[in-house]
Amino acid sequence: MNKIFLLIALLYACSSFAQKPRARDIGIPFDGTTGKFNAITDVKGVEVGYSTIISGTGKNIRGKGPVRTGVTAILPRGRNNNPVYANWYSLNGNGEMTGTTWVTESGFLEGPVMITNTNSVGVVRDAVLKWFVKTGWYKEDFWYTYPVVAETYDGFLNDIYGFHVKEMNAYEALDSAKAGFIKEGNVGGGTGMMCLGFKGGSGSSSRVVKIKDSTYTLGVFVQANFGRKRNLVIAGVPVGVALIDTLNNEFKAPPSYQPGDGSIIVVVATDAPVLPHQLKRIVQRVSLGIGQVGGQGTNGSGDIFIAFSTANPTAFQRSNFTKVDVLPNDEINPLFEATIQATEEAIINAMVAAEAMEGINGNKSYALPHQLVIDLLKKYNRIK
Amino acid sequence: MNKIFLLIALLYACSSFAQKPRARDIGIPFDGTTGKFNAITDVKGVEVGYSTIISGTGKNIRGKGPVRTGVTAILPRGRNNNPVYANWYSLNGNGEMTGTTWVTESGFLEGPVMITNTNSVGVVRDAVLKWFVKTGWYKEDFWYTYPVVAETYDGFLNDIYGFHVKEMNAYEALDSAKAGFIKEGNVGGGTGMMCLGFKGGSGSSSRVVKIKDSTYTLGVFVQANFGRKRNLVIAGVPVGVALIDTLNNEFKAPPSYQPGDGSIIVVVATDAPVLPHQLKRIVQRVSLGIGQVGGQGTNGSGDIFIAFSTANPTAFQRSNFTKVDVLPNDEINPLFEATIQATEEAIINAMVAAEAMEGINGNKSYALPHQLVIDLLKKYNRIK
Amino acid sequence: MNKIFLLIALLYACSSFAQKPRARDIGIPFDGTTGKFNAITDVKGVEVGYSTIISGTGKNIRGKGPVRTGVTAILPRGRNNNPVYANWYSLNGNGEMTGTTWVTESGFLEGPVMITNTNSVGVVRDAVLKWFVKTGWYKEDFWYTYPVVAETYDGFLNDIYGFHVKEMNAYEALDSAKAGFIKEGNVGGGTGMMCLGFKGGSGSSSRVVKIKDSTYTLGVFVQANFGRKRNLVIAGVPVGVALIDTLNNEFKAPPSYQPGDGSIIVVVATDAPVLPHQLKRIVQRVSLGIGQVGGQGTNGSGDIFIAFSTANPTAFQRSNFTKVDVLPNDEINPLFEATIQATEEAIINAMVAAEAMEGINGNKSYALPHQLVIDLLKKYNRIK
Amino acid sequence: MNKIFLLIALLYACSSFAQKPRARDIGIPFDGTTGKFNAITDVKGVEVGYSTIISGTGKNIRGKGPVRTGVTAILPRGRNNNPVYANWYSLNGNGEMTGTTWVTESGFLEGPVMITNTNSVGVVRDAVLKWFVKTGWYKEDFWYTYPVVAETYDGFLNDIYGFHVKEMNAYEALDSAKAGFIKEGNVGGGTGMMCLGFKGGSGSSSRVVKIKDSTYTLGVFVQANFGRKRNLVIAGVPVGVALIDTLNNEFKAPPSYQPGDGSIIVVVATDAPVLPHQLKRIVQRVSLGIGQVGGQGTNGSGDIFIAFSTANPTAFQRSNFTKVDVLPNDEINPLFEATIQATEEAIINAMVAAEAMEGINGNKSYALPHQLVIDLLKKYNRIK
Repeated sequence: MNKIFLLIALLYACSSFAQKPRARDIGIPFDGTTGKFNAITDVKGVEVGYSTIISGTGKNIRGKGPVRTGVTAILPRGRNNNPVYANWYSLNGNGEMTGTTWVTESGFLEGPVMITNTNSVGVVRDAVLKWFVKTGWYKEDFWYTYPVVAETYDGFLNDIYGFHVKEMNAYEALDSAKAGFIKEGNVGGGTGMMCLGFKGGSGSSSRVVKIKDSTYTLGVFVQANFGRKRNLVIAGVPVGVALIDTLNNEFKAPPSYQPGDGSIIVVVATDAPVLPHQLKRIVQRVSLGIGQVGGQGTNGSGDIFIAFSTANPTAFQRSNFTKVDVLPNDEINPLFEATIQATEEAIINAMVAAEAMEGINGNKSYALPHQLVIDLLKKYNRIK
Repeated sequence: MNKIFLLIALLYACSSFAQKPRARDIGIPFDGTTGKFNAITDVKGVEVGYSTIISGTGKNIRGKGPVRTGVTAILPRGRNNNPVYANWYSLNGNGEMTGTTWVTESGFLEGPVMITNTNSVGVVRDAVLKWFVKTGWYKEDFWYTYPVVAETYDGFLNDIYGFHVKEMNAYEALDSAKAGFIKEGNVGGGTGMMCLGFKGGSGSSSRVVKIKDSTYTLGVFVQANFGRKRNLVIAGVPVGVALIDTLNNEFKAPPSYQPGDGSIIVVVATDAPVLPHQLKRIVQRVSLGIGQVGGQGTNGSGDIFIAFSTANPTAFQRSNFTKVDVLPNDEINPLFEATIQATEEAIINAMVAAEAMEGINGNKSYALPHQLVIDLLKKYNRIK
Repeated sequence: MNKIFLLIALLYACSSFAQKPRARDIGIPFDGTTGKFNAITDVKGVEVGYSTIISGTGKNIRGKGPVRTGVTAILPRGRNNNPVYANWYSLNGNGEMTGTTWVTESGFLEGPVMITNTNSVGVVRDAVLKWFVKTGWYKEDFWYTYPVVAETYDGFLNDIYGFHVKEMNAYEALDSAKAGFIKEGNVGGGTGMMCLGFKGGSGSSSRVVKIKDSTYTLGVFVQANFGRKRNLVIAGVPVGVALIDTLNNEFKAPPSYQPGDGSIIVVVATDAPVLPHQLKRIVQRVSLGIGQVGGQGTNGSGDIFIAFSTANPTAFQRSNFTKVDVLPNDEINPLFEATIQATEEAIINAMVAAEAMEGINGNKSYALPHQLVIDLLKKYNRIK
Repeated sequence: MNKIFLLIALLYACSSFAQKPRARDIGIPFDGTTGKFNAITDVKGVEVGYSTIISGTGKNIRGKGPVRTGVTAILPRGRNNNPVYANWYSLNGNGEMTGTTWVTESGFLEGPVMITNTNSVGVVRDAVLKWFVKTGWYKEDFWYTYPVVAETYDGFLNDIYGFHVKEMNAYEALDSAKAGFIKEGNVGGGTGMMCLGFKGGSGSSSRVVKIKDSTYTLGVFVQANFGRKRNLVIAGVPVGVALIDTLNNEFKAPPSYQPGDGSIIVVVATDAPVLPHQLKRIVQRVSLGIGQVGGQGTNGSGDIFIAFSTANPTAFQRSNFTKVDVLPNDEINPLFEATIQATEEAIINAMVAAEAMEGINGNKSYALPHQLVIDLLKKYNRIK
């Protein structure tokens, strides 16, 4: 098995200098129309930045590594500090997303969404405050805010109890955030993640929908670290069952580990003018997209999602009354469908992009085998 | 005791032809500035109607009575069928308020709020639909809606298992709804209710608040049927403890009855431009108003509240995008305070207005003794 | 098209005297192990009863019909009035399920779950109370309860504004409730329902799971009336897209109707010893099962689910402390998976069983064409 | 005014070596029976520890201080790592309590509750994980958990953007946690807090209730930093209005500051055997206790509460089925009342214990003037 792993690793190492293929590139079919980058950054203003931390190999020495982790930053309006309408939902709350109580209460997300590993939520959380100070994010003399920081667990590949994420990693993710093309797979917070029996990580997708005479974009970003191999479904095809005996992640599962443990954090952005209670509706649909690839929200999974709207740039006011545009409920279905479709594709994108990885103690996570997947989709007549 | 009851009953019977005094009239102090009618109808457009059903005396014969019950209808925009932004909250959910799932989902209340007794929610619910058909409420050829009907339990005074509320009572409440002055005490759904050791029923109050350069009105309507006498507090004075041995309601408490069982339904209306998630914030403050008079949300109590905003008359659209006015969160405190104050006063208004009542099987509920309350407030230096 | 309809109707009319085939009978594959009846009644104690109301043909005369509706009753412990632990969830709250506020608060479901059409929730709700009186359901002298009654909209086939469901229909459903084999398709509350582009209705399925050394059963009952044809997926195969141009339901869609409007009510029963907050977890997974067949929780849909556990028959106590068995969270995954699988199969069972129906004004809903589905599953290599 | 401040400060400085008086000591009346320590530690097993950080005076230099802050640790079962049933509630979510998503989902609180200032939630959060590693809290080879860390804002007295709380402060609070008598006022996380127009901080109280034949204890701990002076009510007496012109906190309120901003974190512990959904009911009653002293859950306030039960020490199991004791809903009222009473008294205890404090830039917060309060209670005939 080791040889296969090295082979695959080598294969990916070579390809990693080039643009990685995405799910559509290798022929996996999806419904709907994507935006230009097929990413959350298709929603104007949204920026994504990463800090990827990879070092060491071999037996884990706590505090030294090997390290396979990182931080992801998603800025709703880039460097513009204007809060966005937001809401959140938990399919299975075995995880953390800080700052949600104020999102629920106020209807606003006041800063970036950060994603990292389970044990680094705190350092990233306070670092966001320090970054606000450093960058003069708030102009007022009196402010306080509750950074939104989420996580998934990378302790099978990463020295997670070594606490390797530092403030500077949060700064790096924030400072490097940009619009346009975004990397996927083993980058940022997604670096050491595993998903549905293969290597997981960061992924994204978008949809463009027409509602009445307007065109809106909805983008999804995932940090995918969930699910059991046997449940993996791609384009309706039971890929996981078919591949159940090949390319299995190799790690010593501790007794208390249950396959399927892991988590998925999902961030949904849209430029459609929806209110906080409508964003609650949208963000609940993420579950249905996760279900499309075989997710079941298992007990050990922290499946927590947040959605925001970049419309209504003047929605947030300290003391002035304001006017906001609102999409009628009866026209919201295209956004529901876009959420489901883009969530499904973002997960598969994360898996397609993620290369095989060896982490602590020789633990290995194999990449989704593109050709075998394509073969299966052909076998099941989903593609020619 | 019977004589005292008759005396009191007589006293009230006489006074009932005249305008009943309200809490402020007899000298009870409250904070804040009321609207013209000190009622929910101070919010422009809001209309209130009652159907009061009182018949028979003596031993209860199921299906014949005595009957002490009724129906209350609150129409957010009168006969205008335009939905209003709304939200709801349950302090203790031992009760029913139908239609709330769609209120949560859509952010809208699409029709009247009806309040009746526990066993008549169904008949009133379907009657609202029939009334919509009768009155041509909906112009469209395809519509469905989920009437909001709430209840409290009047089975100590009323033949509640006789199911005396009929469709026509719901129609009567709806058809008689009007703006302006509204009756309190033993009227409508509140007819047979008891509260904090005395006779309860329907009550209302309002507050006018200034926010920035605008003036807004917030009105509260209660159907008060909750609480233990020993907890009754008026203007900070422990009235219930002081009166613990006098004028106690007389009914054979069944073994499974716990003092404090009962409920309170609260409807909050405002013309301030608040969104559904802000209405959730407002409606949660109702609990604090109930706490001011000694409510504890006991296990047997159905303490369910709904709030709506009559601002933004064009908020609801089938298919057109719209613009809505929004109050900034930082300016919402006056509405919170108004909700607390008006809830407190509405409950005391219900008790001050409610006359003593004899119901089934000679069960009696005594009225709050105005003079004794005033004497206590003087003793505790709350009034001169 | 009319001829095709008659042919199909005839075909089904003939077959309707015999036992109707179920999804597995015609070869549709599902995961997991079913109970004996592959129905919610596999959970010991659970009983299901129907009242089916079908009369008239031709142009609708309000109040006369044609009538295509009914009532379904699900009794958690049959005639045993002992409450069961319960919880509920709304994927999209464009619907009604009464009684849920007390379910949330108390953790208990105190009586049957009733399902009918949108406009008959009230009559059925009060009828349950009357049936409790008639049958001596409560032995105490002081009781009140909040019947759980849910609905979906059958107004395309049924004279829904004729209000044809009467108290006696609720009684019939309750009185006829029984364990064992249950009918599916056009029966009870599901009579006039449509689903994913074909005729829908009542359906059920169950799963048997092994957890540690114990075997548990989880059963699902659906009243399926939701979804757009183009989204219909069976066993991963895009059946709806393939059949998009054939056998389309024929009714004059009013301008305000959006394909996908409709609803699904789901009832989940299990004998596993789970607490109310664990039932919340289970009932949230229903969404994932709906997603498997193409449901998206569209705006017009009332997708409301309730789950209960028949374990711990002494959980409910008026005044005595009690002991209850509890399944650890770490062992709950098989119940999640069972919920997803049984929900998926129950919906397909409803569609497989439902015969074509002609309702008001000649509106027609076509049955899922079994052979065409099988052909598609073969084409996509899902079955041989 | 400066002289008055010094006088008061001196007065308190002298008294601070002795045991500080508590609300009951100075004659303020409360209902109910307290436990031995009248503190959350009356619930067997509960331990409380503090780290208090006070240094510097004069003009604030960011990063140097003055510093007036700290950390509080509440351990549900002391050093026993056995999770407790728990639930939480937010009256107004302008604040942070991490770890709540898993509390909701699992029904368990898996470690201590930590309370600190707004900007130190992160460092404390990760420090708890490190403390778990250090102390061998978890014996398993595979674990992850989501520390519960809450906060209130002390930026008027403390150099909050200097980030003075360090990991060692979290360790100190955890390591020093003990049962029995606990300090109140300017200690731990409460060090720099202000409340209802006076100095606030840490406070506690408890109630002993009899339910059937059993005796249970319920304890409350608060970090009180909320409310406007004009709303302060003690024992029903409008103390705040009476003292509106005296001893006003002296700080330069930034333009965006609104009186009433601030927060209250409340922790409720009980040894009564209640399930997670019953703990939700209990924790919602905290609002009513806050209302007793004049709290209104203003927009700027983070009023977030958590409740847990130390009963059922074997409730948490990784893989074994278990049995738990359950209190029937109908007997829960005494716990509701105890929650309300102990919350009220804990807040007043915090204020009575808190000494006047001068913080950054000469900002001063005055202590509740005991004698003036007593005089007012006499004037209003609440005490002799």
